[in-house]
Amino acid sequence: MFTLPQKESRAPATCPGPTSIQDLDSNYGDDLERECSRKPDRKLPEYCGASGPTAMLSSDSSCLSSRGRVIKWFWDSAEEGYRTYHMDEYDEDKNPSGIINLGTSENKLCFDLLSTRLSQSDMLRVEPSLLQYPDWRGHLFLREEVARFLSFYCKSPNPLKPDNVVVLNGCASLFSALAMVLCETGEAFLIPAPYYGAITQHVYLYGNVRLVCVYLESEVTGLDTRPFQLTVEKLEMALQRANSEGVKVKGLILINPHNPLGDIYSPGELRDYLEFAKRHELHVMVDEVYMLSVFEKPAAYRSVLSLEGLPDPQRTHVMWATSKDFGMSGLRFGTLYTENRDVATAVASLCRYHGLSGLVQYQMAQLLRDRDWINQVYLPENHARLKAAHAYVAGELQALGIPFLSRGAGFFIWVDLRKFLPEATFKAEMLLWRRFLDNKVLLSCGQTFECKEPGWFRLVFSDKAHRLRLGMQRVRQVLEDKSRVAEEPSSCQTQEPRS
Amino acid sequence: MFTLPQKESRAPATCPGPTSIQDLDSNYGDDLERECSRKPDRKLPEYCGASGPTAMLSSDSSCLSSRGRVIKWFWDSAEEGYRTYHMDEYDEDKNPSGIINLGTSENKLCFDLLSTRLSQSDMLRVEPSLLQYPDWRGHLFLREEVARFLSFYCKSPNPLKPDNVVVLNGCASLFSALAMVLCETGEAFLIPAPYYGAITQHVYLYGNVRLVCVYLESEVTGLDTRPFQLTVEKLEMALQRANSEGVKVKGLILINPHNPLGDIYSPGELRDYLEFAKRHELHVMVDEVYMLSVFEKPAAYRSVLSLEGLPDPQRTHVMWATSKDFGMSGLRFGTLYTENRDVATAVASLCRYHGLSGLVQYQMAQLLRDRDWINQVYLPENHARLKAAHAYVAGELQALGIPFLSRGAGFFIWVDLRKFLPEATFKAEMLLWRRFLDNKVLLSCGQTFECKEPGWFRLVFSDKAHRLRLGMQRVRQVLEDKSRVAEEPSSCQTQEPRS
Repeated sequence: MFTLPQKESRAPATCPGPTSIQDLDSNYGDDLERECSRKPDRKLPEYCGASGPTAMLSSDSSCLSSRGRVIKWFWDSAEEGYRTYHMDEYDEDKNPSGIINLGTSENKLCFDLLSTRLSQSDMLRVEPSLLQYPDWRGHLFLREEVARFLSFYCKSPNPLKPDNVVVLNGCASLFSALAMVLCETGEAFLIPAPYYGAITQHVYLYGNVRLVCVYLESEVTGLDTRPFQLTVEKLEMALQRANSEGVKVKGLILINPHNPLGDIYSPGELRDYLEFAKRHELHVMVDEVYMLSVFEKPAAYRSVLSLEGLPDPQRTHVMWATSKDFGMSGLRFGTLYTENRDVATAVASLCRYHGLSGLVQYQMAQLLRDRDWINQVYLPENHARLKAAHAYVAGELQALGIPFLSRGAGFFIWVDLRKFLPEATFKAEMLLWRRFLDNKVLLSCGQTFECKEPGWFRLVFSDKAHRLRLGMQRVRQVLEDKSRVAEEPSSCQTQEPRS
Repeated sequence: MFTLPQKESRAPATCPGPTSIQDLDSNYGDDLERECSRKPDRKLPEYCGASGPTAMLSSDSSCLSSRGRVIKWFWDSAEEGYRTYHMDEYDEDKNPSGIINLGTSENKLCFDLLSTRLSQSDMLRVEPSLLQYPDWRGHLFLREEVARFLSFYCKSPNPLKPDNVVVLNGCASLFSALAMVLCETGEAFLIPAPYYGAITQHVYLYGNVRLVCVYLESEVTGLDTRPFQLTVEKLEMALQRANSEGVKVKGLILINPHNPLGDIYSPGELRDYLEFAKRHELHVMVDEVYMLSVFEKPAAYRSVLSLEGLPDPQRTHVMWATSKDFGMSGLRFGTLYTENRDVATAVASLCRYHGLSGLVQYQMAQLLRDRDWINQVYLPENHARLKAAHAYVAGELQALGIPFLSRGAGFFIWVDLRKFLPEATFKAEMLLWRRFLDNKVLLSCGQTFECKEPGWFRLVFSDKAHRLRLGMQRVRQVLEDKSRVAEEPSSCQTQEPRS
């Protein structure tokens, strides 16, 4: 059974599948029977057409519209890895032979700090205004706090404005809303690949917007300075190709720090990408949900909001959330910052479908304003724990002779397991992924992120030591077993970790 | 400036405008300059077409897609009444000459009870699982509680199942998600009108689904037993008309207890409507968000889930929320109950965009399971307060000689002010609405609810006595002033209140 790793929480925890909508094509029904086939040149389906290709999807679901069937398919197909995990979750006491999850990008290192802070008495405030209909953009007290918070942590040259803030229940909703208000149906965003695969469905399910990949390679060539380096030249080429194929591109998505690469863009690079976008009148959506999770030299990271004089401020839209930086994926708090009032208003108009509880808005404002706790307790401890966990996993990988990328940001290491594939195919990648799962450890493989080179995996390290140890033991078991049957590794250009 | 009363919180608090999408037509730009024009025969725009009619909307918003401009337009145009109110809100101490809001359907009578309950120590629980990615359908502990709660309060013949429950952040999201998964773009739902106008945008903004009105009249004729009576004959005719116009109808929306009529359907009526839907293979979405707000003879109300043997359980989808029955519009908690697993799964797949915080899910489970508090404290007190507030406003209306409908359910009275219009037009209705606003009281007028007879208003009574008194004084001032210039009232068929 084919699985699609598009589910935000589970995407990274599922087996390979088509992450780009190009795979949802006229042979979709057949695809359901196949595993790991990638057909990047195929056309998007018009999922609204009743007699269209998607009508082939689960024909027994006669009560659903064709788009409803596609929506359900995303759910069903994303479930395999996670469902397997969920039925057999590792528990130190109750199920020590259960599956260790190194696939889902969550920070599980700081629940003690968060529980202590969120349990304080200042967090439970119930007043009438919090129980009444909110301002759909978010309560003013929260937008003010978000503006102050971002001004400080993004190091903006001038104070950011509460009126430019829209608050909603996570960045998934934000991608969905932005796709709607910036694109017509069938239009596209550019995105450097590999990328966090769930974005595919975020822009597609409601908005019917697709992604055009700017494929990056691990090999370092020419002016590129590191593996999977994004360059303006690559952006230009991808845009030209899309244009020549009649695909209207309306924007560019940048993830910084990057998921799954763990990469961070320099201010010069950021400016180059923004200038490229301005030249072509493209919107830029900058996903900065890992901005406070830079645990090696945090000062090296620069938010796009720190830049003096954005090239095209009316088309630059920044998103941030507490899901990663505060390890609270389940809290559902995200925010947009944009100087474009039309965009802010249009997104706000959709916010009645993405609103969060007034009680949670109050809690978030309390948390974000507690600069003492954030600066003196949470961030130093979080960074120290991330660093230690990263060091442990990096050491294990080095001991195994496995190349990997890492810039000291995010919760994951982008690992090169190409030499463990008997052949350079996504089928082989998927089989390796399944061997890990059979050996009770869940990883995410490169196809999940639309990586074009089979054999890359994302390994999440932001978990407690005992789970990491056991998980890495199981990874080692599979690879040592695998290496006895695999071919000789090919030359590898990827970097060793920088720390 | 034209205002559209589609905003969930503010819809009822704004001035008249086109509540059906038929108004978003090729002369849309012109419409923005006019007030209260109704063009029910016009066609829907294809809002995805870049060069289509909606391109005329706010042409200065060049950064938005055409659908983005429509979405923004909904926001902008819904704001007038509420914006005016918001800038000059009544406050007993600080702004006693401010505007009294009798337009927004919120229950403001029980904040004391809710604050006390929600502030109890059992409400603040922070554990890792609540901060991690949830099951997008809702945490199992909450779905179990919802199933038990609905089984009990809906009096279901058999226990309802947690697997048939999907939890999300309010019924607005649920309408949006159901529109997507049940309809293709451009298809339609039947809805008896007048109806809660915000549904128009709920199904349209993301889903591009429109509503086909089954217009009801105040006059009692033939077999109809009460004003604005819904009959199967009317449903059949509306469906036939839609078919003959090439509009594909996929479902029927029923609101019970009804907003804005305050009406409740008998079990026999409910069954008739469901049988009609089954004959035509229509889905039925039953909105029961006021089910516990039946303050006169609550036993007379029957949830659709209480019926033995639903005619078409696979196409019957019930929604409920805490926004009305627990007076917590700002908490953002809603739920779907459907036996159709495909529909439940497809909606769940969209729930990553409509998820609510794990902390709130915990609180809601605590609240819903506290049967002692609900049965012995909250419901009796809430009903007593609603009844008293209703009695006061009903008495005032009777003293003014104003006919109105009321069945003792909901937060509002459907008031017949036709005799106060100098002419039977929506322009006159809007002018009366504006006179109320000028006299510092905000009401909702019939056009907001797609009522086809000018002169009906919805008056919300679920507010504190001092605000109600002042609001009704101001209503009286306008009407007494108005009655001096109005024509003689025409004969009126509406009922007097039943209690």
